Amino acid sequence: MLIKVINPNTTWSMTATIEQCARAVVGPGTLVEAVSPAMGPASIESHYDEALSVPGLLDEIAKGERDGADGYVVACFGDPGMDAARELATGPVIGIAEAAMHAASFLGRGFSVVTTLGRTIGRAQDLAEHYGFARQCRGIHACEIPVLELETNPDALKLITEACRQAILDDGSDAIVLGCAGMADLCKHISDEIGVPVVDGVAAATLFVQSLVTLGLQTGKRGEFAAPLPKSYVGALESFGS
Amino acid sequence: MLIKVINPNTTWSMTATIEQCARAVVGPGTLVEAVSPAMGPASIESHYDEALSVPGLLDEIAKGERDGADGYVVACFGDPGMDAARELATGPVIGIAEAAMHAASFLGRGFSVVTTLGRTIGRAQDLAEHYGFARQCRGIHACEIPVLELETNPDALKLITEACRQAILDDGSDAIVLGCAGMADLCKHISDEIGVPVVDGVAAATLFVQSLVTLGLQTGKRGEFAAPLPKSYVGALESFGS
Amino acid sequence: MLIKVINPNTTWSMTATIEQCARAVVGPGTLVEAVSPAMGPASIESHYDEALSVPGLLDEIAKGERDGADGYVVACFGDPGMDAARELATGPVIGIAEAAMHAASFLGRGFSVVTTLGRTIGRAQDLAEHYGFARQCRGIHACEIPVLELETNPDALKLITEACRQAILDDGSDAIVLGCAGMADLCKHISDEIGVPVVDGVAAATLFVQSLVTLGLQTGKRGEFAAPLPKSYVGALESFGS
Amino acid sequence: MLIKVINPNTTWSMTATIEQCARAVVGPGTLVEAVSPAMGPASIESHYDEALSVPGLLDEIAKGERDGADGYVVACFGDPGMDAARELATGPVIGIAEAAMHAASFLGRGFSVVTTLGRTIGRAQDLAEHYGFARQCRGIHACEIPVLELETNPDALKLITEACRQAILDDGSDAIVLGCAGMADLCKHISDEIGVPVVDGVAAATLFVQSLVTLGLQTGKRGEFAAPLPKSYVGALESFGS
Amino acid sequence: MLIKVINPNTTWSMTATIEQCARAVVGPGTLVEAVSPAMGPASIESHYDEALSVPGLLDEIAKGERDGADGYVVACFGDPGMDAARELATGPVIGIAEAAMHAASFLGRGFSVVTTLGRTIGRAQDLAEHYGFARQCRGIHACEIPVLELETNPDALKLITEACRQAILDDGSDAIVLGCAGMADLCKHISDEIGVPVVDGVAAATLFVQSLVTLGLQTGKRGEFAAPLPKSYVGALESFGS
Amino acid sequence: MLIKVINPNTTWSMTATIEQCARAVVGPGTLVEAVSPAMGPASIESHYDEALSVPGLLDEIAKGERDGADGYVVACFGDPGMDAARELATGPVIGIAEAAMHAASFLGRGFSVVTTLGRTIGRAQDLAEHYGFARQCRGIHACEIPVLELETNPDALKLITEACRQAILDDGSDAIVLGCAGMADLCKHISDEIGVPVVDGVAAATLFVQSLVTLGLQTGKRGEFAAPLPKSYVGALESFGS
Repeated sequence: MLIKVINPNTTWSMTATIEQCARAVVGPGTLVEAVSPAMGPASIESHYDEALSVPGLLDEIAKGERDGADGYVVACFGDPGMDAARELATGPVIGIAEAAMHAASFLGRGFSVVTTLGRTIGRAQDLAEHYGFARQCRGIHACEIPVLELETNPDALKLITEACRQAILDDGSDAIVLGCAGMADLCKHISDEIGVPVVDGVAAATLFVQSLVTLGLQTGKRGEFAAPLPKSYVGALESFGS
Repeated sequence: MLIKVINPNTTWSMTATIEQCARAVVGPGTLVEAVSPAMGPASIESHYDEALSVPGLLDEIAKGERDGADGYVVACFGDPGMDAARELATGPVIGIAEAAMHAASFLGRGFSVVTTLGRTIGRAQDLAEHYGFARQCRGIHACEIPVLELETNPDALKLITEACRQAILDDGSDAIVLGCAGMADLCKHISDEIGVPVVDGVAAATLFVQSLVTLGLQTGKRGEFAAPLPKSYVGALESFGS
Repeated sequence: MLIKVINPNTTWSMTATIEQCARAVVGPGTLVEAVSPAMGPASIESHYDEALSVPGLLDEIAKGERDGADGYVVACFGDPGMDAARELATGPVIGIAEAAMHAASFLGRGFSVVTTLGRTIGRAQDLAEHYGFARQCRGIHACEIPVLELETNPDALKLITEACRQAILDDGSDAIVLGCAGMADLCKHISDEIGVPVVDGVAAATLFVQSLVTLGLQTGKRGEFAAPLPKSYVGALESFGS
Repeated sequence: MLIKVINPNTTWSMTATIEQCARAVVGPGTLVEAVSPAMGPASIESHYDEALSVPGLLDEIAKGERDGADGYVVACFGDPGMDAARELATGPVIGIAEAAMHAASFLGRGFSVVTTLGRTIGRAQDLAEHYGFARQCRGIHACEIPVLELETNPDALKLITEACRQAILDDGSDAIVLGCAGMADLCKHISDEIGVPVVDGVAAATLFVQSLVTLGLQTGKRGEFAAPLPKSYVGALESFGS
Repeated sequence: MLIKVINPNTTWSMTATIEQCARAVVGPGTLVEAVSPAMGPASIESHYDEALSVPGLLDEIAKGERDGADGYVVACFGDPGMDAARELATGPVIGIAEAAMHAASFLGRGFSVVTTLGRTIGRAQDLAEHYGFARQCRGIHACEIPVLELETNPDALKLITEACRQAILDDGSDAIVLGCAGMADLCKHISDEIGVPVVDGVAAATLFVQSLVTLGLQTGKRGEFAAPLPKSYVGALESFGS
Repeated sequence: MLIKVINPNTTWSMTATIEQCARAVVGPGTLVEAVSPAMGPASIESHYDEALSVPGLLDEIAKGERDGADGYVVACFGDPGMDAARELATGPVIGIAEAAMHAASFLGRGFSVVTTLGRTIGRAQDLAEHYGFARQCRGIHACEIPVLELETNPDALKLITEACRQAILDDGSDAIVLGCAGMADLCKHISDEIGVPVVDGVAAATLFVQSLVTLGLQTGKRGEFAAPLPKSYVGALESFGS
């Protein structure tokens, strides 16, 4: 089984961490390939960044179809381009916010999200609402560390850990969801520190895709998520059109 | 006052109709300019088409900022790229689904949407939910005419009118919302035929933008919708990066 | 085009301010007439006051129909008698809470309401819920200044401005809605002070009615909002019965 | 204990039936007085009728306070003027739609409402939503018999019974709520015919008021429902002002 | 009329208090019998305790049916086993959380719950949501006194009273709901102290059952709540099976 | 890794099928043990049956803890006793309705449930609501085949397949959820017949538990789901008390 993990930003060092986290959890028969698209923003911290990441992401889905990928993980906590990706892909596609929220909802009554910049909170609220977890998602908190500083800021781990501890107290939650693919390797440390389950969406999404492929389950294709109709595209997007 | 109306698909004959409908309703001091982006799909009938229309749409917003546009209408019923557009634009941005649903909610307890292809119904449901009109939006109905056939299919007007008549009966609604910018010029005919108010989002959005500009109201910029942070973009999207 | 703005309380000095705010925003072809009813309370600060304002308000709607009004604004933030007014009127009827909440929802993800007395908060919650803005309306805050003191209390502007500033911080909102027709002339000052968009419902409702009339849109009359059935009324209300 | 039942329309023959239904269920120590107001519509079948019934209704509440009533029933299925009545009254006030929906929700997972004219359905939907029973209220159905014909139309009982039978089948409900005070005496017949519990709001509200009075429970008066502030009222409503 | 009140825990001193509170409010023709089951936990403070209380509770319902009980009260604030009890019983069954929330919703816009241990808050949230009172129930607060210490802790009354006072301030509520059958006798004291209505579910449920029986209303039996199908049960539960 | 699958009814032939379906999907390092409790009903088709299945189910959880089980599946579509099971268990516990609804929500916008008897629909509605899938769950349909006839009725597969086909058409869904553990082996046949993804909760829950265990995620134990407090239990349930 081949699971393609797409980090929609173009920072390959982050893609490498993501790949490592995904590979650490899959079963013996599962291959994981992580990529960044050929075009897109260095990090995704606004609706604008997210919008510009989608064409590259969809290009990677199209490549994955040609390469026989069995399923896909979209490894950005804004879950960009999910509906379009599901139209293109034959196998299942899961976003890391989606996976993390599903996983956290198995672990108790409510969870808190700890994310990077405050300006991304609105998108996370939209996703919680869309997936059905408006009640379970009790709070979304920012540590105000930009995505690309997660790797370089020496205080990042400490600040995020404290934000998680505070979130649990303020929200009365049972679990933490980490709100950025760049936090994928911090789970165990934080969980050990604060004594509650901490969910990373990258690993969760990878295992949920593996589960769906094992179950033979794919996106329903009889209506909204059928393959896009063939049509002409003009300009720089022409290459997407066939 | 300059209102820029962006038809996110690249079919300029449709853009011309849209421009005409918008110009017909504005006040004497308001200029309307309608455009299609330099890149994008010929029509928008899937999540994939919609995703690929967004970079071109945002490019037009960026141009509008340089040209001094006071406000923007996004003239596709899927309201693509709205959040990103609001980050880029200084003045207000309104989508035509958004405007039409707001307008219809002023006219009674419930409205029905009549749209093109059934596969677009899901997106319209998402929008109704997102804008707060899940209760007011009593049904979304497809006439199964592709967007670009609206101009050429000789039976289009009749089929859409009948779909509207049936929707009112089935849903017990007080008003109709037409679910495609390409239907902008059909309102009066259908309303005369079936005796209920029929809302076209293009004209409604244009007047609501004109209203907000007159009121001095712009998107709040203190948090989520602040201008995107400067950062590097790679690949075909480089031109968006500054 | 004639828009009739009805201030449902009987304090004509407030009606004059309202008229001024409405006239300041309409297009060159639009006439605005503002009135108070012949009967009703001096101010509306309870459900009881609101209930007693409705017969006079409806009387003014009936007069407006005879005088050829094209649309109506109900200029009290409790939006009293709206459903009944829509039955009586041929043209559109919009309440100022309704208009302000719609306008604010175009400006970002969430808004806060700042109103007069705390005891009116419940009504505003009902309206936010009814119009579909339960999620967008993030908080309703009282400055505890009675309606008629808005004009006379020398600290009113300062107190309201501070309440707005605090509301934005507490709720993480993108915009402010002013919760009383008597605050209609404070928008610009407060917006300049706190740097976020501030919405006055009087001006917003007037422009939305102007927009609907321009679009040829009226309340749907095929069901719930058809003209009331003729019937006998007894007592002091007899004059309403024909 | 004195319970005052107010039929907000001015048709005293209907008031007599209502009084009879209320008296039939109360305990030995409870007196029931039913009245119609001195002013108001002959029947309530529109938002307009409802709005015009409220001043008379509130007048009766004020009289009840002077007469020492311990609690009130508002005996019209639109539950007019409830919030204002709760401000005026010391003891509990319950509407018959409110009571009937509460009672029906004790009897299973879902109920259906059968009412008079289709144009009143919207109001019943609002009430179901407001009271928290949007999920439990599975359908609202009109038999299209005007309120005052309930007493005179020889087919009324048969038509209503059939509408109830059909509603149960269509909605999969466990119970029926009768949507008009004028149907108060039909419960037993319909229940016997169709084999499901049938709730009349008049009797239910009367017993719930009796229960609250016995429990020593009154409307909370610390905020929204405190007595209205004293103020001047002009015109025909002057008499309400003190 | 015979109303059977079942305290699902096995602490008979608490059952005696419950019986006293129920008997104090019923009409002259109503008999109240309160019991604890033959098996179950000494107190109910977890989902586990609640689950283990249900078989004994259902056994008491079955006995009640043989003894001709006209209706039942389930006197634990977790409302355990309600759906199953409604399948077994001919007459109405009401839980004390259910009754208290219904009663409180008659008394204003919002209520606060004050309960025993914090770990029971989740269950109360589920119930508020299930009964339709998610909006009305503005907060659930624990005083962290275990159920069985309510009778013995000399500070219990004072601590609960203060928790109620604080809850009203924090939540802006109009009424208090006491979240444990063991608090049934504290209502009057707390209400006198803090000046807001305080609802005890035991007395409320008893009077609501009395009301439903008087109205001739029973659980609808045409679908979900029909008597359970006869089938074999193995193990210690065999006695339930016929 | 040891996953214990508990079929809460006492029909071991059904337990054997369940075990087979679970074992077919797990990874090479995962052991699956399926059991029925020592006490409980032969099948679960009512709230009463479900309530009586819980003590036996919890007994099996307690045994599993002693035997070192890493996680649990509750293999009845009513998801009985879940909250209590999560208090007892160290590792994750997932119900098959929960798992199936989560899985189906990954496959499109909406799913339909096809279950056994109509009287169980209410419970499935409760679960969809509780898990957050009220919007995604578009319909719940009964084929009116009792649980134990699934194995013996020669027309069962055909009737269920037709119910699934019809549900997809009526609800416009993207996927089917099978609403009984006894249907676990029918997925592939039905999916092949009707061309949409069909989810069996037994296999889905097993893989989701395997995923959570691999991720090191357990129920949060800091509040509501902490181990039950030690206390005395009387009667036939005594053995549960320590």
